[in-house]
Amino acid sequence: MLNQDEISLLQKKLPFWEHLTTTQRDALLAGAAPARFSAGQSIHCGETDCIGLLIVKTGTLRTYMTSDEGREITLYRLEGGDICILSASCVLEYIDFDVSIDAESDCELLMLGAASFARLSAENVYVELFSYRLATERFSDVMWAMQQILFMSFDKRLATFLLDESAKTGSNELHLTHEQIARYLGSAREVVSRMLKYFAKEGYITASRGTVTLADRKGLRSLL
Amino acid sequence: MLNQDEISLLQKKLPFWEHLTTTQRDALLAGAAPARFSAGQSIHCGETDCIGLLIVKTGTLRTYMTSDEGREITLYRLEGGDICILSASCVLEYIDFDVSIDAESDCELLMLGAASFARLSAENVYVELFSYRLATERFSDVMWAMQQILFMSFDKRLATFLLDESAKTGSNELHLTHEQIARYLGSAREVVSRMLKYFAKEGYITASRGTVTLADRKGLRSLL
Repeated sequence: MLNQDEISLLQKKLPFWEHLTTTQRDALLAGAAPARFSAGQSIHCGETDCIGLLIVKTGTLRTYMTSDEGREITLYRLEGGDICILSASCVLEYIDFDVSIDAESDCELLMLGAASFARLSAENVYVELFSYRLATERFSDVMWAMQQILFMSFDKRLATFLLDESAKTGSNELHLTHEQIARYLGSAREVVSRMLKYFAKEGYITASRGTVTLADRKGLRSLL
Repeated sequence: MLNQDEISLLQKKLPFWEHLTTTQRDALLAGAAPARFSAGQSIHCGETDCIGLLIVKTGTLRTYMTSDEGREITLYRLEGGDICILSASCVLEYIDFDVSIDAESDCELLMLGAASFARLSAENVYVELFSYRLATERFSDVMWAMQQILFMSFDKRLATFLLDESAKTGSNELHLTHEQIARYLGSAREVVSRMLKYFAKEGYITASRGTVTLADRKGLRSLL
């Protein structure tokens, strides 16, 4: 059972709410439940996995694709207030690819189970429209990532990432390992380490175990 | 004015037709027109360009993204019977990226002008749903391309491409320059030339100016 805050969140986040009949609203609420995932936990993986629509209350989800050899490319991240549709990809007939989704930090979510969401989506055109709009929004995210990965040189990408992280956390000190940075950027740890060494030499950053500190933001920005 | 065949094609290709009022049908037909593009001609380029929905009657459209330095990555191609939605991206609020679209061969199209299509889409939820479904289908195409570009090694990609082209044209003789192949694969001409030289040495193909001939399909397939 959802509490009143959770019901309000659903109503706020689901623009099709006003187009639902009372029966459909009841069905949606009956199929909804709060969920928690711990940092690092896998939420969605592979085609057979279809837990449903996820509304992020707190924490960060990371969506990525994986090669046969296990190489990962981060496509986008979702945070508080965002809605994850690819965890319900089985509901969307026009999606025929698959991605993996992990909890990047501890997460609190509201989950709309795939079965009841699929039923609603088949019954109500506004629910289906909502899903495909959301999928198209993610398409935009993926195109951005593709642009970054394929066209932007790595020094620019790393500088952009460090400045973004610093802006997001409001601190010059970023608690990130080279491995983590590599994963965010869809690159290899060695490539990150090499570039951070170069950045340190230029005086843009200082690096110690598990921490990167921005020392010269202007310098970093000059790379963009 | 559309002729009867063209009107039938519209009705067949637009599943929302049955949900339109008579006035909306008239508006759609009034905003539709046949169009022709020659091989190599640009159809859509940049954010300000929004000609509308395109139904391909004959020929091939190529959709690609371009880096600041002019490097191209082919995302997908559309052929007879396919519908191009990204040429109407201005109609779709949730698309915030842009691509280029060229006629790869001489093309005959049916064009639904952006202005009238936007009006219909705002008025009729089924039209909007159709657009976002189509966009999501293209999202699937792009994810496939991304998988190929980022994860598949180049020998596999080139072999796949040559076998596909041969199947499509029904001939072992492909009239393609290295430059063209590179463009299709989002690679550089030098990379293609090097790999074709290797393929020739292995006896998989023979290459002459502007032509690649498949000599050992089994050998090519063994790379996949």
